[in-house]
Amino acid sequence: MTDLSRFSINQMTVKQLSLPELVEQCVRLSVPGVGLWREPVAEYGLEATAKLVRDAGLTVTSLCRGGFFTTDSWLDSNRAAIDEAATLGTDTLVLVSGGLAPGSRDLAAARARITDAIAELAPYAGERGVRLAIEPLHPMYAADRCAVSTLDQALEIAERFPSSQVGVVVDTYHLWWDDRAPAAVARAGAADRIHAFQLADWTTPLPAGVLTGRGQLGDGAIDLRAWCDLVDEAGYRGPIEVELFNDELWARDGGEVLEETVGRFSDHVGRLG
Amino acid sequence: MTDLSRFSINQMTVKQLSLPELVEQCVRLSVPGVGLWREPVAEYGLEATAKLVRDAGLTVTSLCRGGFFTTDSWLDSNRAAIDEAATLGTDTLVLVSGGLAPGSRDLAAARARITDAIAELAPYAGERGVRLAIEPLHPMYAADRCAVSTLDQALEIAERFPSSQVGVVVDTYHLWWDDRAPAAVARAGAADRIHAFQLADWTTPLPAGVLTGRGQLGDGAIDLRAWCDLVDEAGYRGPIEVELFNDELWARDGGEVLEETVGRFSDHVGRLG
Repeated sequence: MTDLSRFSINQMTVKQLSLPELVEQCVRLSVPGVGLWREPVAEYGLEATAKLVRDAGLTVTSLCRGGFFTTDSWLDSNRAAIDEAATLGTDTLVLVSGGLAPGSRDLAAARARITDAIAELAPYAGERGVRLAIEPLHPMYAADRCAVSTLDQALEIAERFPSSQVGVVVDTYHLWWDDRAPAAVARAGAADRIHAFQLADWTTPLPAGVLTGRGQLGDGAIDLRAWCDLVDEAGYRGPIEVELFNDELWARDGGEVLEETVGRFSDHVGRLG
Repeated sequence: MTDLSRFSINQMTVKQLSLPELVEQCVRLSVPGVGLWREPVAEYGLEATAKLVRDAGLTVTSLCRGGFFTTDSWLDSNRAAIDEAATLGTDTLVLVSGGLAPGSRDLAAARARITDAIAELAPYAGERGVRLAIEPLHPMYAADRCAVSTLDQALEIAERFPSSQVGVVVDTYHLWWDDRAPAAVARAGAADRIHAFQLADWTTPLPAGVLTGRGQLGDGAIDLRAWCDLVDEAGYRGPIEVELFNDELWARDGGEVLEETVGRFSDHVGRLG
């Protein structure tokens, strides 16, 4: 039988489920962890969500997401996200850092701005027991969503701060193509900076807008087992979160998709270290 | 007045034009170079194309494309492409190397296969005065079109062979996001391995399939002038080819698109070294 002790379902994978439905399905399928998103949490109520999840015995493995540091309201918005993470009982806030400033073509400036914003936020997060997890996004998002495109770039920023305050997200969808990623994973693990590990498969053709084509585990090009081994060898022992944005999965019954995802995790990840 | 002496139009940018129409429009607009594609050349006739272009005084700056080394017929197909390049009078065959082998999830194996195939082809190309130009494609094409995703990876392969036989393509669309690309451009230039330089802008949202969203110069996120400076500082003095695949441009009058492209080149690249 598959060990699900480190399995976590990111809420967006089954966004058709309300929070009570999500919790009910997790309990039914012995899924111990959930990654939550700020918007549905706000809709259900922050305190109500914290209680719902806690009463069901679930662990909140991460909150998505802070970041977007090129918007005017980034400071207030990110402080609120840190507070929400603390209330939900998770120590990990995922950062999608934002792309180019409006009208700019200067990626280096965007990365510098991200570093400055994290410097402003890191102590605030640390005081609340929340770690900022910089997520490098696939280079196809560099212009409009995240100027941090490689794990090396994310680490270069994170390493300026204590690992208790700032780390990185390793997400197979974003990093699978990069031959430098394995060395960066080892470096991140040795410094205790892998704050989240997320799985999704790479399927083609990509949909328009390239946001909703994260493939179900096993359907695509990524050797997911090899990535789990890599992260394992780097010393990571935390949750393994499955985060899929996929129009076809969203059109189906959420409980059925969650059950399928547990099965795919069993088939393509299997035994954990 | 803009110096067009190094400007070249890749045929795909205005694929709505037949070869005679393309040549006529180039002459009208004082465009000195064209990058050609095998399929339309074969349709018009190889020898007929060579004569048409030569008689008009145009330079063929490159032929697209060889590669796709994971197909069964790669060897015959690539030898034919080399022969065609020689007949057309261009010294540069662009390689789009192919993605994962069918059913495989092993990118390293795909890259090794590409290296082996190039080893097989390089002497054949060299004997015919044709250089194989490895094009790193954006990481979003790694699975299905090209497992060579960065200029560093392309150079690592190219450097095993004489620069008279194997080099690289620097294409802004594929490389603009990569903070390691500037150093790789310098390295490639110092070794005389920049065999082609292509421009396209990065516009979002990307279309479904992500093949036909290469943006008109100036419409997107890339600092094209900075890329020209980079390649210039690396010692490159060859043609600058504009290669756009863009459904909106293809739906318009081809001569008008070519004229617009010359204007954009003037606005966003301007004076050349």
